Amino acid sequence: MSEFEEVSAAQVKRRVFLSGLAATTAASLLSAVPGVGQQEKSSTRSAASSNDPFETTDKERIDDLVTANHILFQQGVVDGFGHLSVRSVTKPTHFFMSWNKAPALVTKDDMLEFDQDSTPLNANGRLPYGERFIHGEIYRARPDVQAVVHSHSPAVVPFGVTGVALRPIMHLAGFLPQYVPVFDIRNVAGENNRITVNTNAEGAALAKVLGNSPVVLMRGHGDAVVGPSVKHAVYRAIYTQVNAQIQLQALPLGQITFLNSMEGANVDVSNESGGGHKAWEIWKAEAMANSARLAPYMKG
Amino acid sequence: MSEFEEVSAAQVKRRVFLSGLAATTAASLLSAVPGVGQQEKSSTRSAASSNDPFETTDKERIDDLVTANHILFQQGVVDGFGHLSVRSVTKPTHFFMSWNKAPALVTKDDMLEFDQDSTPLNANGRLPYGERFIHGEIYRARPDVQAVVHSHSPAVVPFGVTGVALRPIMHLAGFLPQYVPVFDIRNVAGENNRITVNTNAEGAALAKVLGNSPVVLMRGHGDAVVGPSVKHAVYRAIYTQVNAQIQLQALPLGQITFLNSMEGANVDVSNESGGGHKAWEIWKAEAMANSARLAPYMKG
Amino acid sequence: MSEFEEVSAAQVKRRVFLSGLAATTAASLLSAVPGVGQQEKSSTRSAASSNDPFETTDKERIDDLVTANHILFQQGVVDGFGHLSVRSVTKPTHFFMSWNKAPALVTKDDMLEFDQDSTPLNANGRLPYGERFIHGEIYRARPDVQAVVHSHSPAVVPFGVTGVALRPIMHLAGFLPQYVPVFDIRNVAGENNRITVNTNAEGAALAKVLGNSPVVLMRGHGDAVVGPSVKHAVYRAIYTQVNAQIQLQALPLGQITFLNSMEGANVDVSNESGGGHKAWEIWKAEAMANSARLAPYMKG
Amino acid sequence: MSEFEEVSAAQVKRRVFLSGLAATTAASLLSAVPGVGQQEKSSTRSAASSNDPFETTDKERIDDLVTANHILFQQGVVDGFGHLSVRSVTKPTHFFMSWNKAPALVTKDDMLEFDQDSTPLNANGRLPYGERFIHGEIYRARPDVQAVVHSHSPAVVPFGVTGVALRPIMHLAGFLPQYVPVFDIRNVAGENNRITVNTNAEGAALAKVLGNSPVVLMRGHGDAVVGPSVKHAVYRAIYTQVNAQIQLQALPLGQITFLNSMEGANVDVSNESGGGHKAWEIWKAEAMANSARLAPYMKG
Repeated sequence: MSEFEEVSAAQVKRRVFLSGLAATTAASLLSAVPGVGQQEKSSTRSAASSNDPFETTDKERIDDLVTANHILFQQGVVDGFGHLSVRSVTKPTHFFMSWNKAPALVTKDDMLEFDQDSTPLNANGRLPYGERFIHGEIYRARPDVQAVVHSHSPAVVPFGVTGVALRPIMHLAGFLPQYVPVFDIRNVAGENNRITVNTNAEGAALAKVLGNSPVVLMRGHGDAVVGPSVKHAVYRAIYTQVNAQIQLQALPLGQITFLNSMEGANVDVSNESGGGHKAWEIWKAEAMANSARLAPYMKG
Repeated sequence: MSEFEEVSAAQVKRRVFLSGLAATTAASLLSAVPGVGQQEKSSTRSAASSNDPFETTDKERIDDLVTANHILFQQGVVDGFGHLSVRSVTKPTHFFMSWNKAPALVTKDDMLEFDQDSTPLNANGRLPYGERFIHGEIYRARPDVQAVVHSHSPAVVPFGVTGVALRPIMHLAGFLPQYVPVFDIRNVAGENNRITVNTNAEGAALAKVLGNSPVVLMRGHGDAVVGPSVKHAVYRAIYTQVNAQIQLQALPLGQITFLNSMEGANVDVSNESGGGHKAWEIWKAEAMANSARLAPYMKG
Repeated sequence: MSEFEEVSAAQVKRRVFLSGLAATTAASLLSAVPGVGQQEKSSTRSAASSNDPFETTDKERIDDLVTANHILFQQGVVDGFGHLSVRSVTKPTHFFMSWNKAPALVTKDDMLEFDQDSTPLNANGRLPYGERFIHGEIYRARPDVQAVVHSHSPAVVPFGVTGVALRPIMHLAGFLPQYVPVFDIRNVAGENNRITVNTNAEGAALAKVLGNSPVVLMRGHGDAVVGPSVKHAVYRAIYTQVNAQIQLQALPLGQITFLNSMEGANVDVSNESGGGHKAWEIWKAEAMANSARLAPYMKG
Repeated sequence: MSEFEEVSAAQVKRRVFLSGLAATTAASLLSAVPGVGQQEKSSTRSAASSNDPFETTDKERIDDLVTANHILFQQGVVDGFGHLSVRSVTKPTHFFMSWNKAPALVTKDDMLEFDQDSTPLNANGRLPYGERFIHGEIYRARPDVQAVVHSHSPAVVPFGVTGVALRPIMHLAGFLPQYVPVFDIRNVAGENNRITVNTNAEGAALAKVLGNSPVVLMRGHGDAVVGPSVKHAVYRAIYTQVNAQIQLQALPLGQITFLNSMEGANVDVSNESGGGHKAWEIWKAEAMANSARLAPYMKG
């Protein structure tokens, strides 16, 4: 039996992820794994930027963030609403995110820079998302997080409004904790709240419920999914949705055997190596084809 | 923390909506909100007509109505059946609606003008929808309503034929009342009825059950969704469907925490500002791409 | 209130359908309805052949049958399997149907003529569908039937294998009887049967269970849907599927109020006038666009 | 009544399949069925290679395997993950499979040859799938198997994690056994396992649970589907998914009458003749159209 180097590389990545080290440190660690650099070089099929598990420059991060917007639209995780961000490499308290636009229509020229309080620095009159505080407060609370997806992924909503917890039912969602936490804004803003997260205080309360989890559900609203790269966050947002849909279908059948925490952690190492790299390739192709189809009908 | 002006603008729009003021009055009020006109002007991404929360001329309304037909087909709210209308600005007791054609195929040349009794004025032998009375009688009963969508949106049908009420389960459907009313034509036309609404009297009975709600379900049939603009009605028709689908999936999980009425009202202010403007942009692009795909195969 | 002539015309059509008169007689009756011919002529939007409620020549029937194959594939009623036929006008004991080919790939050159015993007359070595006896025996038993669709429409299968009857839940399926009959081939061929209908005797047994219904379910298999024209059969096959899907979603919610038989009959008059004419137009456009997309990759 | 030769031919094929004879033997047997060769020759619609029930050369097998990758992606059986293989004709202990790539992107240049221990012989630095042992060990245990599909087909997952067995609910899945076996890797690797099958020992344990079945579910993971040709394995993977989806929808309705084992075996003879030949034709056209759409956006 042969294990191949991807496991070793992925294990490093996972340790980095779990320990909350910064991306640049991760890149250093990875380059030290025997055979990894060599193997990636020897692949004749994948460009370097895709094989790179972490987006290492702000330009790379923003490029991936634009693609991620289009992927999550094409995959049905976001629709006309929802938003994604990435932490700045050069100024790690800051993050990048589009102004208030439908994700499918976002280009790199739409990206704004936000400071540690989620204040946009270069809006020039463009309206930011009202819920930018989700992103800013998660980055503040979780140094390991490099990217955040906020969506209203329909399949997850039932788990935020009933007593039934979203749990890992299949291996591609091995990253899910045993019980995905649920944030209820009523606990912060009372009965007369606005559902959405519109202040730093509300964002901080959400980040507190998220804790060390990669996903937090938001009651009557959707979820926030985080990762050590844009690619990881996209992978997790998609398979959180897939897992939720399967769990909804399995629940009427009776008691479910979920992945235990060891199984989830073990399998996630290989699933997410490179941020679900091979899946990203096809998701990106699908998203680009979709964008090209829509391009003649998009304004601005 | 910064709230931005969109909330103030949206609050005005909502007050206008709730109080049933005419669109032109709304436009005046909006222009009086400090910073709103300026902000919309300074946006480099959106054309004026899309930012405008209400369609202010009959031409604009008919243009949006054509687009709305194509959007709701592309989104699966209507199929070969279903119909949409808009109130006339110049003659507010009248309304515009296509003759009896599949929504996907409707162009502006297909639009007929109907009087206050739902009689077509310029049919020239073209058959009107048999259920035009849904529209005429809602416009008569609800001066605040500028647009009406009637569809057989599959996900809503179960809530019209069982004792289970459609309720707001997620924030994008914050416009829904706590319990969406259900119209049963048996109460008007007896057991030997035609299900459909084919007379002014039946339309008036439907409008009475609608009351002040944005949505009324029709038993064994579908629903009618109304709004202060075509864009609002489209937004609501789509998220009524999304909400229904999610509620169907959540019901087997046990007791559901729905949005309370304050949450719904609060969140709806921002969701629907400009008629769900940013969502409309992508829905329109999708619909136009779809229409272009089908155009070579459409007759007439 | 104005009723318009379409109702009168449709009522004639329905009487023809219910009384089992031949299509040619129906055409005569229709031409006698005051205003119908005139109205159809005055429509600037629809070609004559589409307005015609029945396909009046074998050429028209075969043209519609080819389109119907493509429509039902595009609508998900058939996939690689399933088949459709139309009765011959010139030789009413005979019928036309493709040889054993995937419906999406069928052209008019693939159409075979079958005699009253379902024997192909012009196969020239081309394999007929093994289940052609479904069609032949229904035409024998039901002189009013001009077209037959056999499919494995996934949403109907649950109603053939459980004690739960498929019932009319929404008006577009007003043609459905109060309880759709279910054919179980075990009653004819015993436990060691082949599920499929492969003999005249099995076909006759199926036709007997069909009775006067427009639809019969086949246990562990699918259904057969009939109509007074290809267009009607297509309309019914599609809305049988839609109705089944909605009923599946409504069943967990508790007791359902179905259409009563008067409601179903009344609403069906207008739904199906001209074989669901306006829906056919958009279904045909969708199917043609789909066929054009696939054409470069089809063999033969 | 006429039975036509396809049944005889298919019966031979099935006997071959059930008895585990090699493909070349099957081809000999088939050529001995009176009328089969003649009939296939006389078809004006199908090329020889498609009519051929088994891929008889390694080139044919690899060509079909590439197509199969694209078909199963287009049909939603695989997404960015999942993998397919075919046994070598020339060296029957070996098999062919892509390196670790998303199925939609696979070309024949990506195919690696694996030996009887699932060691790649011509990887040249390209990473093999970590779960190649699923394939190698099934080929070792099941000489009749010529092709293996491993997927995470979402509809099957619930049957692997609950006490509810996947069973044949409709005739197109007549190949399914009365109760599809479920492999739980905990029984082999304990609680601290990796879910995935990453060693020869784990693959052998999976093959043992598969036994003589065409399908084995994998708890919290997906399934493995096998067949006497690539076409058969594709057919079965698709209808395993269809059957699972229908069963999920039927379960809340109460007790289900499944196909009995005689029905399943009988109907499967005609369904799968030529590996579901006519369905393969349209699946292939769909897949090629999809690949052409994505091609401009694929790397490498």
